[in-house]
Amino acid sequence: MTIPRKSTQPLNIPLILTMGCPVGIGPEIIIRYFSLPDCPFQGHMVVVGDVEILRGVTRALGGTLPVVPWSPGDTIQPGTVPVYPVSNLVYDEGRWGKPDTETGKVMGQYIERGVQLVEENYAAALVTCPINKYSFHLAGYPFPGHTEMLASLTGTENYRMMMAGEKLRVVLVTIHEALEKVPSLLSQKSIVDCITMTITSLKRDFGMHNPRVAIAALNPHGGEGTMFGDQEERIIGPAIQACQHLGDISGPWPPDTVFYQAASGRYDAVIAMYHDQGLIPFKLLHFENGVNVTLGLPLVRTSVDHGTAYDIAGRWQADEQSLSAAVSMAADIVSNRKKAMHR
Amino acid sequence: MTIPRKSTQPLNIPLILTMGCPVGIGPEIIIRYFSLPDCPFQGHMVVVGDVEILRGVTRALGGTLPVVPWSPGDTIQPGTVPVYPVSNLVYDEGRWGKPDTETGKVMGQYIERGVQLVEENYAAALVTCPINKYSFHLAGYPFPGHTEMLASLTGTENYRMMMAGEKLRVVLVTIHEALEKVPSLLSQKSIVDCITMTITSLKRDFGMHNPRVAIAALNPHGGEGTMFGDQEERIIGPAIQACQHLGDISGPWPPDTVFYQAASGRYDAVIAMYHDQGLIPFKLLHFENGVNVTLGLPLVRTSVDHGTAYDIAGRWQADEQSLSAAVSMAADIVSNRKKAMHR
Repeated sequence: MTIPRKSTQPLNIPLILTMGCPVGIGPEIIIRYFSLPDCPFQGHMVVVGDVEILRGVTRALGGTLPVVPWSPGDTIQPGTVPVYPVSNLVYDEGRWGKPDTETGKVMGQYIERGVQLVEENYAAALVTCPINKYSFHLAGYPFPGHTEMLASLTGTENYRMMMAGEKLRVVLVTIHEALEKVPSLLSQKSIVDCITMTITSLKRDFGMHNPRVAIAALNPHGGEGTMFGDQEERIIGPAIQACQHLGDISGPWPPDTVFYQAASGRYDAVIAMYHDQGLIPFKLLHFENGVNVTLGLPLVRTSVDHGTAYDIAGRWQADEQSLSAAVSMAADIVSNRKKAMHR
Repeated sequence: MTIPRKSTQPLNIPLILTMGCPVGIGPEIIIRYFSLPDCPFQGHMVVVGDVEILRGVTRALGGTLPVVPWSPGDTIQPGTVPVYPVSNLVYDEGRWGKPDTETGKVMGQYIERGVQLVEENYAAALVTCPINKYSFHLAGYPFPGHTEMLASLTGTENYRMMMAGEKLRVVLVTIHEALEKVPSLLSQKSIVDCITMTITSLKRDFGMHNPRVAIAALNPHGGEGTMFGDQEERIIGPAIQACQHLGDISGPWPPDTVFYQAASGRYDAVIAMYHDQGLIPFKLLHFENGVNVTLGLPLVRTSVDHGTAYDIAGRWQADEQSLSAAVSMAADIVSNRKKAMHR
């Protein structure tokens, strides 16, 4: 499925695509995406990555687009893959799926340069291809993932992950935590922050006038009046009360039906209390075309919703749908933010 | 959507449909289901309930099928709604959605008589319409739900709830528990029991020769090597190891992808560690046509996957799809068990 581009406003500065781990599937999905016959952002995208890697991938895929170096301010030739070159890796078939200190280091540099290009207004938004925690670790970066690195680079303290698709948007209150720790990690403040950032993003980034946000309960059936847990009464309910002035905020709803209701069109986003509560339904509906959007950053950033897939890197089986959706969503957000500024 | 009947073996004794709470939507979905032009089990079903209630509902819905009393052993006339009368409630429009001691009492009696008819071989299986915990409580029954009452009536100690649909089957290790209690309630024994009952049911009840059962992890990403929780290593993994002789048993799989994989056809059932882990994906795919099957009982029992819906009882908006699916599944299970006995 090709995700149609919804926004009609042209971009006058490009979107940045970071190449991600150079020995993962990032380079492949980038070349596949640029090569789509109806690629909607040809001429409006720049890759931050390695020229020779992308040329090698183009050859391997039988592609025809020339991979050309680009510098900030250059005009983009449609029908090319413009690359802001960060390093000088050579194409080596034997390295697919084998990250090392060098690949980890350049992977981080792509992100640093990408952020810099957006901050200096040479580019409109950042779309990131997958990186790997182990690879970061090898290169000495202290971050578990993209989001934490971007927060650090931009001095952001309060941020959240939204997973967005055509049918469902979910925002997570807690992320990579053992399930047994989740109940004690919930606080009114963390939920209020999450609701506030979600409402802001739905209005400014998604162009909604009166977004409807559902908050999931923590416990089955919402605890059935504290019979199975009291976090709904102690924490989640009061947080929802405290946010009533922000708009159409409702809950806590029984988790086993709220995602169905949202996917049926009743809500614009669901706030999930923990990773799997939100990601089980999200991946069920958007396994191939989900987008990860970081809320709270000063710059627009979307990401593919999958990992480096080292097991299939260099085997030419990767699917560019999630990247396609992430690029379209970044462009939409840029366009919606402009409109919001002019309202 | 009408669920096609898959089994071709005729039933020589009827299926029992218990009417459920008489002031909920049970009577309505029964009359709607019997009245379907292509109702596949006309002539093979008996309702255990109240004749006058079902006659009143037939009138209100503009139905044409006569509601006729039935006694054990009677021949069933197709084109009728045969009812084994348990009590003598009168039809009263003012009572919809208002359970009381009397409605609670008869609701329990329908179940007792239904079980008796199956145990005495007057009927082949039990399909239950929704009851209500509050209503049970009013009438002094000590059960939180059907399943516990059926276990008590049949002297069953070890039972599990399977939710089954065309795309996904899930079996729950823990059910109505506060999320914070779930990690400490998991044990190797409870997981092994669950796997064993699931495999038995998939073979005997669903007619599968080599069922593939996936076991979900408890923690996000399966704990990532104990970084976010150790239940995978301490409890779930060893339980899976202990079940390898039973067949194609795999896991613990990351919860956010295993349900997608199962719905895509890779597994025949997923063992979920807690209520919402299993029911969020199940209801997302099978909100309208899911079936609840009780594993471990000596009799075949399926149930609709929804409640009494007091808010719409008597408003004639209820949907019989889940009942239709529950009846078809009960008939399939009866047929598959017969085949299994003859193998």
